[in-house]
Amino acid sequence: MIVVMKTDSTPGQIEHMATQIAGLGLTPQVIRGTHQTVIAAIGDERPGLTEVLEAGEGVEKVLPIMAPYKRASSEIKRDRTVVKAQGLEVGGKKVTVIAGPCSVENEEQIVSIAKTLKKLGASGLRGGPYNPRTSPYSFQGHKELGLKMLATARAETGLAIVTEVMAPEHVPIVAEYADVLQIGARNMQNYQLLQAVGDSGKAVLLKRGMSATIEEFLLAAEYILDRGNMNVMLCERGIRTYEDHTRFTLPLATVPYLQEKSHLPVVVDPSHGTGKAKLVGPMSKAAVAAGADALIIEVHDDPEHAMSDGAQTITPAMFSELMAQCKRVAEAVDRTM
Amino acid sequence: MIVVMKTDSTPGQIEHMATQIAGLGLTPQVIRGTHQTVIAAIGDERPGLTEVLEAGEGVEKVLPIMAPYKRASSEIKRDRTVVKAQGLEVGGKKVTVIAGPCSVENEEQIVSIAKTLKKLGASGLRGGPYNPRTSPYSFQGHKELGLKMLATARAETGLAIVTEVMAPEHVPIVAEYADVLQIGARNMQNYQLLQAVGDSGKAVLLKRGMSATIEEFLLAAEYILDRGNMNVMLCERGIRTYEDHTRFTLPLATVPYLQEKSHLPVVVDPSHGTGKAKLVGPMSKAAVAAGADALIIEVHDDPEHAMSDGAQTITPAMFSELMAQCKRVAEAVDRTM
Amino acid sequence: MIVVMKTDSTPGQIEHMATQIAGLGLTPQVIRGTHQTVIAAIGDERPGLTEVLEAGEGVEKVLPIMAPYKRASSEIKRDRTVVKAQGLEVGGKKVTVIAGPCSVENEEQIVSIAKTLKKLGASGLRGGPYNPRTSPYSFQGHKELGLKMLATARAETGLAIVTEVMAPEHVPIVAEYADVLQIGARNMQNYQLLQAVGDSGKAVLLKRGMSATIEEFLLAAEYILDRGNMNVMLCERGIRTYEDHTRFTLPLATVPYLQEKSHLPVVVDPSHGTGKAKLVGPMSKAAVAAGADALIIEVHDDPEHAMSDGAQTITPAMFSELMAQCKRVAEAVDRTM
Amino acid sequence: MIVVMKTDSTPGQIEHMATQIAGLGLTPQVIRGTHQTVIAAIGDERPGLTEVLEAGEGVEKVLPIMAPYKRASSEIKRDRTVVKAQGLEVGGKKVTVIAGPCSVENEEQIVSIAKTLKKLGASGLRGGPYNPRTSPYSFQGHKELGLKMLATARAETGLAIVTEVMAPEHVPIVAEYADVLQIGARNMQNYQLLQAVGDSGKAVLLKRGMSATIEEFLLAAEYILDRGNMNVMLCERGIRTYEDHTRFTLPLATVPYLQEKSHLPVVVDPSHGTGKAKLVGPMSKAAVAAGADALIIEVHDDPEHAMSDGAQTITPAMFSELMAQCKRVAEAVDRTM
Repeated sequence: MIVVMKTDSTPGQIEHMATQIAGLGLTPQVIRGTHQTVIAAIGDERPGLTEVLEAGEGVEKVLPIMAPYKRASSEIKRDRTVVKAQGLEVGGKKVTVIAGPCSVENEEQIVSIAKTLKKLGASGLRGGPYNPRTSPYSFQGHKELGLKMLATARAETGLAIVTEVMAPEHVPIVAEYADVLQIGARNMQNYQLLQAVGDSGKAVLLKRGMSATIEEFLLAAEYILDRGNMNVMLCERGIRTYEDHTRFTLPLATVPYLQEKSHLPVVVDPSHGTGKAKLVGPMSKAAVAAGADALIIEVHDDPEHAMSDGAQTITPAMFSELMAQCKRVAEAVDRTM
Repeated sequence: MIVVMKTDSTPGQIEHMATQIAGLGLTPQVIRGTHQTVIAAIGDERPGLTEVLEAGEGVEKVLPIMAPYKRASSEIKRDRTVVKAQGLEVGGKKVTVIAGPCSVENEEQIVSIAKTLKKLGASGLRGGPYNPRTSPYSFQGHKELGLKMLATARAETGLAIVTEVMAPEHVPIVAEYADVLQIGARNMQNYQLLQAVGDSGKAVLLKRGMSATIEEFLLAAEYILDRGNMNVMLCERGIRTYEDHTRFTLPLATVPYLQEKSHLPVVVDPSHGTGKAKLVGPMSKAAVAAGADALIIEVHDDPEHAMSDGAQTITPAMFSELMAQCKRVAEAVDRTM
Repeated sequence: MIVVMKTDSTPGQIEHMATQIAGLGLTPQVIRGTHQTVIAAIGDERPGLTEVLEAGEGVEKVLPIMAPYKRASSEIKRDRTVVKAQGLEVGGKKVTVIAGPCSVENEEQIVSIAKTLKKLGASGLRGGPYNPRTSPYSFQGHKELGLKMLATARAETGLAIVTEVMAPEHVPIVAEYADVLQIGARNMQNYQLLQAVGDSGKAVLLKRGMSATIEEFLLAAEYILDRGNMNVMLCERGIRTYEDHTRFTLPLATVPYLQEKSHLPVVVDPSHGTGKAKLVGPMSKAAVAAGADALIIEVHDDPEHAMSDGAQTITPAMFSELMAQCKRVAEAVDRTM
Repeated sequence: MIVVMKTDSTPGQIEHMATQIAGLGLTPQVIRGTHQTVIAAIGDERPGLTEVLEAGEGVEKVLPIMAPYKRASSEIKRDRTVVKAQGLEVGGKKVTVIAGPCSVENEEQIVSIAKTLKKLGASGLRGGPYNPRTSPYSFQGHKELGLKMLATARAETGLAIVTEVMAPEHVPIVAEYADVLQIGARNMQNYQLLQAVGDSGKAVLLKRGMSATIEEFLLAAEYILDRGNMNVMLCERGIRTYEDHTRFTLPLATVPYLQEKSHLPVVVDPSHGTGKAKLVGPMSKAAVAAGADALIIEVHDDPEHAMSDGAQTITPAMFSELMAQCKRVAEAVDRTM
């Protein structure tokens, strides 16, 4: 850390901070500038230290230097992680596609759409049996019954099941059926849930919180990795900004940035990221061109009558066209699909 | 709802949408404008309908009309709610103050600070035994031991205990000790947790999510109210914006706006809302002037050595001055303190 | 417009608003719903009407229906506009590239880099002789001398000159040398400047303001189109959000969205949009995949010694690789480059 | 500055950066940490240096230390500036109020409202003869005729005239009539305009850009101060965020923060800051409680028929009540009004 002292800080205050830094187990090194003095604090930057030092008398601000995440960092693990689960592989040369409806509505629906998606090239099936909604009056999902329907769809198609888990106590039951546990954007900082999926040993798809910084996103991943579970995918799903023509703003620069900072594979969700069916195609192509390792896309036979998320859901016909187009883009950036 | 058709929508599409609206149990009324046709859909606006209609062919957009929250609305309950818990009253003429450290560190610390705060005019004691932190390596709190320490502080001072609960399964144990269950910003849309605190019957302090709209905030409150628990306080604690000189941006217009839209009392958290000890005083006065029903403030005997949140924590001396100043502002807006 | 009355609005207030709507030359149509009354106001939606009606007694809110821009709208002009200037063509099948240094430093520099860029496939040369900077102490550019250097570079290479104009009174002199007048993000709502470039008849590259909505962006274009100048390109260059790992957040969903709403071609600026040289390549490919009609990129022989914007500037070697990669992506989406 | 090197930077890269720093006239001091090396660059932090150094090989990031504004800084001038213009004094003990309609509509209107406002305690009269609007089809103001009407209102009341100037070439004519030149939010970074009002010697009210950081805001003020004009007021008028229930988000923590960082007085605009008449009163009180030196408020005899900004404009009756209430709050924070 670099502790920046105020221009009018006293020698006593500088001395006091240097002593405090030493007391924290770091080595202080005082640098006197033309206008200002700064103290470099050399050693391990434990979380929380910044805040403690910032409250000191005469301190202007404290600048952290090291990234506070470790296991997620490409500085620690240089080879890229490939997440594998039931035939699904994310992080290799192939750009993988996970697709499916927002909610599991009934067995016939989910098996039918799964077969279609498999045929069109998907490797994973998404679908929410524990479906969180903004209003308490919305459709809440069929819960375990839904999980069984997803398992049936897997048995019929071989697709890996990707489904959201929303509370630590649901992890065992969801892990029994699903191949990939999804952590939703609203739960990105639900630390007990992160630890629970970490302990499960299952592959995890971690969605970025809608106002999370990249550092917070990687720190959330750290909670899972810290339990010894390295099977984590990072999913950019759009952030909240002042823009109002799309449901969220989908920042694709996240893809190469995360790939530089971390060894974990990066998935993009153009359905939630835009909230508009028409934009899913162009943003899927853009995500692949930006280097995404996988896409996760909402597809429904009849979006107009889908129980949820109709506006951002595409039809199998649109999905088929999207796959063909994305495949061409993938090849143009030396990937397969 | 108002379904706005595209300028080039066909008579068939307009007809189709009118039929769909009728099929949903609403009464369609087609209005042909100079350039465009719109269809008013009269009846109950259930959540999710907007999305379904928006996916229709020829539809430009769908404009919702009624607020999707009901029990939280001042249109439903016109008299203001006063939340009461262990001597604490929020929503009446008196501006109430809840204060205390971020983390409960040990019994001596919490009892000592509680006595000081009580003497200086606080009515509630905040303190986190289940302390959520951004990094997995941070101090995690003393859990139940901490709850017991808080109960001791209550026994010695009569202050109401306000403490965060982070998972549905912790609600019973926390409710056993605490007077007010706090839902943190990260959990504002943790629906199972909202329902659990709703069922507990305990007073609830619900913090606004850091990127939640006012509508989403009131819908989250709705989840609690929906379980028959009307003892809910809404807490503005700052939102995430591009501003970088404060930890969050604290938008005080929320206070009068929420008070117009809802009957629930409004609390302001200037500590998290600014992240800087120096700004806590001015923003506390501003919050009272804007009409806040209560303040929640981080106070610690020795912020420099606090285990967490040091930078935004004020000393008892600063708190004493703040109380004296806020009291004068409260009286200037016909409140007491 | 739809005027939504409050649930407790009186018959007198509804009557009053209907009369006011009629007085504004619109036809009011009162729709009584289950809980609420709305008044459709049929006729031309002039700007400013929304605000006037919203101030009425008993009015909850006013919902505009028609987009307030007209000439920029694809509803008015269905065939796509192709902007042409000195060999540069933007909006056709070919994805065009405009490249160059942030600042014109000297004639040798600009001619040399122009030759390199021409050879590598650029069609336009960007470069700022009137260089706006955030601090008053920064390099301010060589002004007219710089324009002459740019003209020399054009004479030697045939590249179209794209340069920013910052004040209405500079339009004549810049228009004398440049082929495309650029309006910077900070000036997107400088209406006199927009009108002046509109009157100039020159092609215009209009950058999106860093916190402008798409509607405001198209309304700014409207100011130029309104003077009879249809040669306008819309340039997405990133918006300000809470993200701090990139200089701005670059939202590529803007590309297909603008292309649906407007007939004007869309340019993407990955240099300013990310602020980081390493992200320029991936985001260029993503922009082309999303359907961008052109790219505008900062290139400098020696970014480390560039007078401005070094961090986001790429070298000719990186540009050469970027062109090769983007060409492959362009072909994958049925464009040329 | 602190140049943070990557963990895998080579000794050669560190050496190279140290040499480059020395070449820029700064003194490099290399600090080798446990995991990472940083180089402190001691000396004057000229703008633009950060960017140049950040582009160096092996550089992770560059952390600036000193604030890049100088004349606006309270570190340079410790006593607070009091801006004076035609009886108006902003920055002293008295909280000053500037009020008036958005647009000057006719002489009778402006003189009549000016008399009312004077009687109710305003010291300044705001009103726009050069009225910028978002759409090209809106009312554009009566220009010079409007300035004359404002001068008549001043002659009749003694109120100082505060009016916006939108282009450098308009400065002389506006300065002839007005007492305070206002720079609108859209022009906060129109550097030629800032220099022109700086040269005019007139008092300036500088509005914060709707997505400007505090640092950018103070740098914009620097442009004016740099011309020897110290008569500058900083006006917080709300920022653009994801919030949609108010027109902008009005962050009052700006008030004490700016007063700590700068010696310039701070004005708050609750009319634009909220966009809703009902919120103007509460936010005015909050602004005074937060320490604002002045308020600027839109008042119109008949907001329903105002030519612009009706929804956020209050009536003289509301203004009268607001003044009485704010006076009480001002006294509660040891100010007068």
